[in-house]
Amino acid sequence: MTLLPSPADPHEWRVRVYYEDTDAAGIVYYANYLKFAERARTELLRQGGIDQSKFAADHGLVFAVKNCTIEYDSPARLDDVLTIRTVVRTIAGASLDLAQNIWRDGEARPLARLSVRIVCLKAATGKPERIPGDLKGLFAAHLAGGKNG
Amino acid sequence: MTLLPSPADPHEWRVRVYYEDTDAAGIVYYANYLKFAERARTELLRQGGIDQSKFAADHGLVFAVKNCTIEYDSPARLDDVLTIRTVVRTIAGASLDLAQNIWRDGEARPLARLSVRIVCLKAATGKPERIPGDLKGLFAAHLAGGKNG
Amino acid sequence: MTLLPSPADPHEWRVRVYYEDTDAAGIVYYANYLKFAERARTELLRQGGIDQSKFAADHGLVFAVKNCTIEYDSPARLDDVLTIRTVVRTIAGASLDLAQNIWRDGEARPLARLSVRIVCLKAATGKPERIPGDLKGLFAAHLAGGKNG
Amino acid sequence: MTLLPSPADPHEWRVRVYYEDTDAAGIVYYANYLKFAERARTELLRQGGIDQSKFAADHGLVFAVKNCTIEYDSPARLDDVLTIRTVVRTIAGASLDLAQNIWRDGEARPLARLSVRIVCLKAATGKPERIPGDLKGLFAAHLAGGKNG
Repeated sequence: MTLLPSPADPHEWRVRVYYEDTDAAGIVYYANYLKFAERARTELLRQGGIDQSKFAADHGLVFAVKNCTIEYDSPARLDDVLTIRTVVRTIAGASLDLAQNIWRDGEARPLARLSVRIVCLKAATGKPERIPGDLKGLFAAHLAGGKNG
Repeated sequence: MTLLPSPADPHEWRVRVYYEDTDAAGIVYYANYLKFAERARTELLRQGGIDQSKFAADHGLVFAVKNCTIEYDSPARLDDVLTIRTVVRTIAGASLDLAQNIWRDGEARPLARLSVRIVCLKAATGKPERIPGDLKGLFAAHLAGGKNG
Repeated sequence: MTLLPSPADPHEWRVRVYYEDTDAAGIVYYANYLKFAERARTELLRQGGIDQSKFAADHGLVFAVKNCTIEYDSPARLDDVLTIRTVVRTIAGASLDLAQNIWRDGEARPLARLSVRIVCLKAATGKPERIPGDLKGLFAAHLAGGKNG
Repeated sequence: MTLLPSPADPHEWRVRVYYEDTDAAGIVYYANYLKFAERARTELLRQGGIDQSKFAADHGLVFAVKNCTIEYDSPARLDDVLTIRTVVRTIAGASLDLAQNIWRDGEARPLARLSVRIVCLKAATGKPERIPGDLKGLFAAHLAGGKNG
């Protein structure tokens, strides 16, 4: 009998859909899911004591999105409450791979699924820089232990 | 001796400033304060049981902004937590005048001050329509009794 | 007989309405007219040889909106082509008052009418600073000579 | 000797970067590249005589993004002029695969590269629907004949 590593808890962040997020098709505009995902990543950092504005001022480091893939499975609509569930896939020296799924309450499948690579950059030069060790612990707490996040 | 009417409590709604809200000047982009104010108005309605999407479907009525004045006194910045305080100035048959001030915690003066006229419209025609009576009670709860909001 | 000053030509800038500008009510979201107006002001400056990013770097000066009033007369919709007509009302030492009307082609009345006060600020301190003399000439070219803009 | 199919001309669309597009990091906010790409797709359709609002009204069909991948290679900044070059990779019954690269004038490499799958949907049901034959010709004009777009 083996104990499988339990997947770490995903980070969860809830957002409300307002008129500003929707478009004339009556649904959330496709770029705005990236705003929701970025809010969730910001709050994951804040949960670990990191305000990005302070972090940039103190350490000269910023986090930037290197690439992003998004699958739109079903549209979100005005007044929906959405939950963004974020897990960390892999942690490398200067980058992180995240999976972020966006759910509407009570549904069996997410509305949208993102894969996002984040890189840590020196603000002054834009060059990749090692993620500080104490931050790695924060990300490890949301590391996916199993196959899915 | 007369008892002056006490100003009703303002409706309060808190928002966080994310990267999406800021611009290259390092501050919140001037149009985005209108987004914050609209979120607060939406939540004031929701507090009274009104989801605007459901309200439009059930009653064929929508609320639209007729005009808006905004004074920018001091800029909001990334990571700020802002509170939007909304009071109702006047309630007419088909319209409402609101004052919405946007505060940063712990400061003596608001960052921005809005005056907004809202009209109730028949969705099908875009013509003004009387605000339903039960909604007027909701707005009256935030009616400013004094001079300031 | 007196020659009345003829109103200067308004500055004109055209924008197209895309999905990103609209909301679930099927019309342009109310805050986005402020984006259109800001694009027009930026192009008015560019017409005078001013790139704001370069201007900030070279002179340490930025233009900020001090206040803004907008009247929403009729909604713009997806695929509309809009023209923003900007006239300068008054030029003071460190500030400008502009009127910006937003028109849909071929219509007798504007969809939206803005009054905007712009202030010139020292970027480093946020304090008002006199508008450089050569810029005043640019603004004077769009100075409204008559009562309306 | 074989004549290789020459790659069709990419569709090109130019956009200007305004304050609204940037964030406090001084660069274009990562979600806003998706807005630029959507404007370019809209103009590609318009070039073929298709206004999406009219198309939805006349045919009951809408185009939706099914998925999107974006690589951020280098940041765009305030006042930049960007060109979005769009080529069609494949045309299937109800979907299209596009490559959209975003360039700054005079540079050897794009700032951002997108792959986008578009599906044609019946507006009333949200179900996939065959792309009308005359539209296929429009897309075929931008079909990539070679390996790169």
